[in-house]
Amino acid sequence: MESSASRGIPPRKGPVALALRYYGRELARLRRLTAPAMLLPALGNIGINYIAPLVIAKLVARIAGGSAALTLGAALPYVLGFAGVLLLSEAAWRGGLHCLNRLDALGIERLYVIGMDELFAKDAAFFHDNFAGSLTKRVLSFASRFEEFVDALAFSVVGRFVPLLFGSVVLWFYEPLLVVALLVMIAVTGVCVLPLIRRRQALVGRREEAIARVSGHVSDSLMNMDTVRAFAAEEREAVEHRSRVARSRELTLRSWDYGNLRIDTVVAPMSVLTNALGLLLAVTIAGTGHGVEAVVVAFTYYSSATRIMFEFNWIGRRSKRIARPPGRRVKRRGAARPTVDSFFRMGRLSCSQPPHKVWVMGC
Amino acid sequence: MESSASRGIPPRKGPVALALRYYGRELARLRRLTAPAMLLPALGNIGINYIAPLVIAKLVARIAGGSAALTLGAALPYVLGFAGVLLLSEAAWRGGLHCLNRLDALGIERLYVIGMDELFAKDAAFFHDNFAGSLTKRVLSFASRFEEFVDALAFSVVGRFVPLLFGSVVLWFYEPLLVVALLVMIAVTGVCVLPLIRRRQALVGRREEAIARVSGHVSDSLMNMDTVRAFAAEEREAVEHRSRVARSRELTLRSWDYGNLRIDTVVAPMSVLTNALGLLLAVTIAGTGHGVEAVVVAFTYYSSATRIMFEFNWIGRRSKRIARPPGRRVKRRGAARPTVDSFFRMGRLSCSQPPHKVWVMGC
Repeated sequence: MESSASRGIPPRKGPVALALRYYGRELARLRRLTAPAMLLPALGNIGINYIAPLVIAKLVARIAGGSAALTLGAALPYVLGFAGVLLLSEAAWRGGLHCLNRLDALGIERLYVIGMDELFAKDAAFFHDNFAGSLTKRVLSFASRFEEFVDALAFSVVGRFVPLLFGSVVLWFYEPLLVVALLVMIAVTGVCVLPLIRRRQALVGRREEAIARVSGHVSDSLMNMDTVRAFAAEEREAVEHRSRVARSRELTLRSWDYGNLRIDTVVAPMSVLTNALGLLLAVTIAGTGHGVEAVVVAFTYYSSATRIMFEFNWIGRRSKRIARPPGRRVKRRGAARPTVDSFFRMGRLSCSQPPHKVWVMGC
Repeated sequence: MESSASRGIPPRKGPVALALRYYGRELARLRRLTAPAMLLPALGNIGINYIAPLVIAKLVARIAGGSAALTLGAALPYVLGFAGVLLLSEAAWRGGLHCLNRLDALGIERLYVIGMDELFAKDAAFFHDNFAGSLTKRVLSFASRFEEFVDALAFSVVGRFVPLLFGSVVLWFYEPLLVVALLVMIAVTGVCVLPLIRRRQALVGRREEAIARVSGHVSDSLMNMDTVRAFAAEEREAVEHRSRVARSRELTLRSWDYGNLRIDTVVAPMSVLTNALGLLLAVTIAGTGHGVEAVVVAFTYYSSATRIMFEFNWIGRRSKRIARPPGRRVKRRGAARPTVDSFFRMGRLSCSQPPHKVWVMGC
């Protein structure tokens, strides 16, 4: 950890860790909601992605094994079992979401209050050193991103990895090699992708700065529209807006492209390879007696489990979007700096200096 | 349409239609990107959700039909075909996302510029009648929600319904009744859910107003912190903040609960019923000759296709979140009104009147 921190990991690590501590405290405080909110969606996923296909695999094996056509009476237990499993899974999902909604709402409420209380306790100098607009944004996103964090935990982490555990146990009974191959391929993909996700983080940071520069300038122009009019500076403001927007478009595309053309071009072939490997293993077992059942189970389990590979990317993206708590480690940054005083400076200087130079000062 | 418009449909319909016209114009302008951005993800979904399972179904039928165990050589074409289909599908996804990223970025850039140009063209009175903060938010969300709109179109509409069409054609060859049952159940669910989605819209609108009241007050307190200090009003501000946050939590839960406990309790059983019905039909065909193949196809196709039912809810949610264009139909609303002047009023009145009354005036 020490060495990675010194090797240029984004400086938001401290604030992010702090936000995570606040979020963790809310999860602990609301633990009666946290437990079912995390586990019930996972249970629902187990039913839908792993138990229901198992019923189908058994039914298919029964049809393939029987010499005569299956009667409706003999098939009915399978169909009813299938419907029952799905219905229970949906009930688990509804119950889980019910708790998750309460967890999100109560956590957000508390974090809104904590955030403002912290700010009210600050001294006057703090407010002179920080822009009200950026503090507002930080209070709001510190609280509202709790929802994003908890949902990612419930859906992408617990809701994916607990079912994977269940699926591994079932697969083990068919062929231990199926489990080994699946877990090794997932782990290898994770290891390959992790450094790429980190590298993209730098691109995302630059993108977010560029977007903040756009919104800062928009807010600034609109708030000082009288002054803009007084100096007949509409055209200059519009040009500046266009150049900031173009820069933000460029950096946005760069970060999106990195995800699609760099990270997912690793994940996608690995996921295809894993699925094909699973099928190949299942076919070899099929020769040894389990027959069609193993093929259906391997196909459905592998295609559910390999979806985790694409989540790596997503989890990495989300966990970094956590807002820092308001009132901590707040410092002026070029990107977040509004241009209102730069604008006044421009107004005063525009007679003697060419406007583009002044804008450079303003940025 | 006439009668539904008069029966309390939210008044945002006009602005939403206007925003959609702007968005549609961007899609037409960038049509060389729009076409592949919409169709390639749909093609990818066809491969992953409909062609790959078909290969598996054929393989299973081959194993079930053969008297001896399948040799690896005989199975290899299936495994390679399966891997090839998945790989091509992933390539289609990457290509589609590449175009979609460009469509999103260029569309957003243009809409940012259009939004600001419209505002620069307004007269001074417009800026005195509107709050700069709310105009800023509107310019930014008008542009950035283009991404949400286009992504929903690509992933949830075109990316789901085009593959459904493909799946229906394949199912038709197995048994036309499978297609009829699937489409009828999807249509019935859509019709049942539509009025519920509309009713929830009112709840969402009230929730968003409550959240705007929270952020308005936060921004207001922070921006006027000197005045808050001068009147030693921190505690009063904190109490007001808490009550606004509690109200927003209450309304947020109400709208979330409507989605989970009211809408999805209709969708989920319908989806389970459809899946069970598909399986039952497949079993009856299995008696007539297609055997295990039909069961595997029906199971995988139905479970892919019924996911559309849950998207109804999602599409409805997204399409209503489209921002109105800045500078159009903008009027003062109680919810968006900042409390800065109410705060000064409070400062002046607090000696003679109880604070809670003053707060009522301020809201």
